[in-house]
Amino acid sequence: MSDKKISSAVIKRLPRYYRYLGELLENDVVRISSKELSERMHVTASQIRQDLNNFGGFGQQGYGYNVEHLHKEIEKILGLEKTYNVIIVGVGNLGQALANYIDFERKGFVIIGLFDVNPRLVGMTVRGIEVKDIDEMEAFVRENTVDIAVLTLPKAKAPKVATDIVSYGVKGIWNFAPIDLQLRDADATVENVHLSESLMTLSYRLSNTDME
Amino acid sequence: MSDKKISSAVIKRLPRYYRYLGELLENDVVRISSKELSERMHVTASQIRQDLNNFGGFGQQGYGYNVEHLHKEIEKILGLEKTYNVIIVGVGNLGQALANYIDFERKGFVIIGLFDVNPRLVGMTVRGIEVKDIDEMEAFVRENTVDIAVLTLPKAKAPKVATDIVSYGVKGIWNFAPIDLQLRDADATVENVHLSESLMTLSYRLSNTDME
Repeated sequence: MSDKKISSAVIKRLPRYYRYLGELLENDVVRISSKELSERMHVTASQIRQDLNNFGGFGQQGYGYNVEHLHKEIEKILGLEKTYNVIIVGVGNLGQALANYIDFERKGFVIIGLFDVNPRLVGMTVRGIEVKDIDEMEAFVRENTVDIAVLTLPKAKAPKVATDIVSYGVKGIWNFAPIDLQLRDADATVENVHLSESLMTLSYRLSNTDME
Repeated sequence: MSDKKISSAVIKRLPRYYRYLGELLENDVVRISSKELSERMHVTASQIRQDLNNFGGFGQQGYGYNVEHLHKEIEKILGLEKTYNVIIVGVGNLGQALANYIDFERKGFVIIGLFDVNPRLVGMTVRGIEVKDIDEMEAFVRENTVDIAVLTLPKAKAPKVATDIVSYGVKGIWNFAPIDLQLRDADATVENVHLSESLMTLSYRLSNTDME
């Protein structure tokens, strides 16, 4: 890998390339031109070439891209050849939905712990994993290697829990609370998912159809 | 409203402005300069001014923004002064999580129907709404005003269901299936949520911390 900084816009597009290449693989497509790929993905061919050139290119003049090779390379770039140990903090409906989503495990995100404050949820089992009281979380994180903590918590609780978890050594936070978590630890990284905001862009488009 | 086309990048930032302004309102902040707002939001002040100028500005030289007024104006732009009738198709964990998320209803997205193919889910009640068999969906949509259909379905089923629902007259699709739905009906609009892709940008950053 090169040591230059890749823009976050490029990084956000990589999983999409990965998904489309995965679909091509499923359909036994061996190679694809940047033009064909661009038509499927509704982006320009030059955008695709430019994005992939950040990582060394992978295409061959007159041949296009070898689908399996490119899929594999993007997998490596995204860090998906590794396995990540994941805990979910907050095991309400959303936490359970994420715990039950087996596709994450297929991609290497393995759930090893579930935590909640609600006594009605503690002791319950989701896919063979028992929900533990959040008081047991610190010991669990210190005893196990936890790479990612998924937070499906109320807005008011998320910042403190995130700070705590990072102080126990977790480097990745996947945050579903409706707040932009800012971590002080420079080694840790947070990805905020704002479902309400996605819904609001939909209501914008429904209310402004004449402007599209 | 002006009739010029607003870029999708601007539209994606509006809900974030709305969220921050809502937090300021909760904290009884009456006015804020674009500089202060920019520091909170980690974007540049000129970006904020430029974005809001698309809709006529709202700021006053030397005063900044009136928080309540700007919040209200963005609410209107986002179409949030209206109410949307919503159905959820696929009432597994994720569908139930969305159905139970009362904040959507506070923002004007009112769930009026739940549909699933699974006989174990049909007849169940979520927040007072009974899950109906998906065979009853067409009649329901034709008899009621449905603005938005939320699809929490497997990838293989989502395209057909989306096409059907749009043909019944629904204009907005909020899609959680891991596929980019493309609608043929030019009047209808889809917002695709790709949770896996968000998780992959996190694994990218965890694997490439030296590059940040």
